[in-house]
Amino acid sequence: MSGKVWLIGAGPGDPELLTMRAFRLLQQASVVLHDDLVSKEILALIPRTVQLHNVGKRCGAKRIQQEEINNLLVNFARFGLRVVRLKCGDPLIFGRAGEEMEALGRAGVDFEIVPGVTAALGAAASAKIPITDRKTASAVAFLTHHQAMNTAEAEWQAWVAAQATLVIYMPGYEYGQIVRRLMSAGMRGNTPCALVSRATARDERVLRTTVEKLPEAVHLPSPTLLFVGEVVSLNAEQVTPLAADWKEFALRDVAAAISAGEAVAQDLHGVSGD
Amino acid sequence: MSGKVWLIGAGPGDPELLTMRAFRLLQQASVVLHDDLVSKEILALIPRTVQLHNVGKRCGAKRIQQEEINNLLVNFARFGLRVVRLKCGDPLIFGRAGEEMEALGRAGVDFEIVPGVTAALGAAASAKIPITDRKTASAVAFLTHHQAMNTAEAEWQAWVAAQATLVIYMPGYEYGQIVRRLMSAGMRGNTPCALVSRATARDERVLRTTVEKLPEAVHLPSPTLLFVGEVVSLNAEQVTPLAADWKEFALRDVAAAISAGEAVAQDLHGVSGD
Repeated sequence: MSGKVWLIGAGPGDPELLTMRAFRLLQQASVVLHDDLVSKEILALIPRTVQLHNVGKRCGAKRIQQEEINNLLVNFARFGLRVVRLKCGDPLIFGRAGEEMEALGRAGVDFEIVPGVTAALGAAASAKIPITDRKTASAVAFLTHHQAMNTAEAEWQAWVAAQATLVIYMPGYEYGQIVRRLMSAGMRGNTPCALVSRATARDERVLRTTVEKLPEAVHLPSPTLLFVGEVVSLNAEQVTPLAADWKEFALRDVAAAISAGEAVAQDLHGVSGD
Repeated sequence: MSGKVWLIGAGPGDPELLTMRAFRLLQQASVVLHDDLVSKEILALIPRTVQLHNVGKRCGAKRIQQEEINNLLVNFARFGLRVVRLKCGDPLIFGRAGEEMEALGRAGVDFEIVPGVTAALGAAASAKIPITDRKTASAVAFLTHHQAMNTAEAEWQAWVAAQATLVIYMPGYEYGQIVRRLMSAGMRGNTPCALVSRATARDERVLRTTVEKLPEAVHLPSPTLLFVGEVVSLNAEQVTPLAADWKEFALRDVAAAISAGEAVAQDLHGVSGD
């Protein structure tokens, strides 16, 4: 019997932002290897019969090397198991999925990718930042602080010239560095920006400021995301602290909704559960 | 009684890529206003007691104006209804959600945004394109063909100079135009690219080529997405036609998985469904 690996996006944090496929596959897994930042509420949805391994590499302290993770994935699958590699957000956005895909491909292990809601989309939804806008931002770029700091001046100018909304993942706390880069690349100091800390979690926080005032911003708990662009100030006055119904979420509500939906689908639309 | 509007991302097409929250809110809605491109499999999950309105604007034939949609949302909510505005992918990525948010805010209507899996992530997952990669693409940009064509030469140079993976939404069929822009902005003709048609649907198709050969590509059914960048050729030989278990998906599997998960969560982790 040969096993299989699913590289699954866990979404931004709120367990109800798992896709239905991610949820189902977690229930059917034999073993789950997860990132450090996957929330405990999501881990609590995994049956206790499933082997759980935290393979997180966090804040530079690489407790486990990428190669070890690759080997675990390959070996568990060769052992015939249903292996889930659970990553925060979407696996293909700064999740190093490419390296795992390459290792699995080289070893001849069957794998599939289950996309998820990437952190930028979760954060923008709760902060009500309309990432794109016909008038002010017809494109968006996702980058990381690490990339940002290792990038030539010309590339910064490219980002600013493109007039896209910029979303910087893992911006760290050296906001002054980022601001110097942005402004010397031609960005106006009064361009709106927002930090979103622990997007979609119960303790999410949003801090709105401008590029020139960003270095004065307090350090919010990680993980954080930095949005830069005119869209940040749109609807800013209407933001409510968090998705209002987070606390109301109970799995059995979803289960009840599914039972109802199933009956309806069979009855009206001829879509059967078979 | 005052109503509320939820702007919900339906994901890329596969109904199992709805988030659990989107699914639950669809079951609890009074009225759903949906885009033309929301798949019939997803619409089939909505109870028949829910009023369904197709407010799609497709292929330039604007059957309904944005302002009319805004008015419908406001008026339904003022009538005390639970209003779902269901958009393909994620509502904040090229979904014109900003305009609806503005109208709702102006009218004092309570609203919430439920993020979804944007089309690029769904397409990349099934085509196994690792959007970002430490060595070859440390950033990604999403843009539209419309934006692309109305953009100054300098901005094209910016995109190419930034060495990000480019994902062009709604690229249309004038591939020659896109290619001329990319190459005159300095992109190498042998840069890999891929068209993904009807991402994550049962009839999804992926076509891999290079920038210089793109104009010869057959016209695949819309909606399509165009990926450009070195990451497109990674893992290319390992791509299987589609997520293998699409056909196996039945709502009752998810419901059963949820029941099991619920019991486990209560038992082991002290997370109650109450």
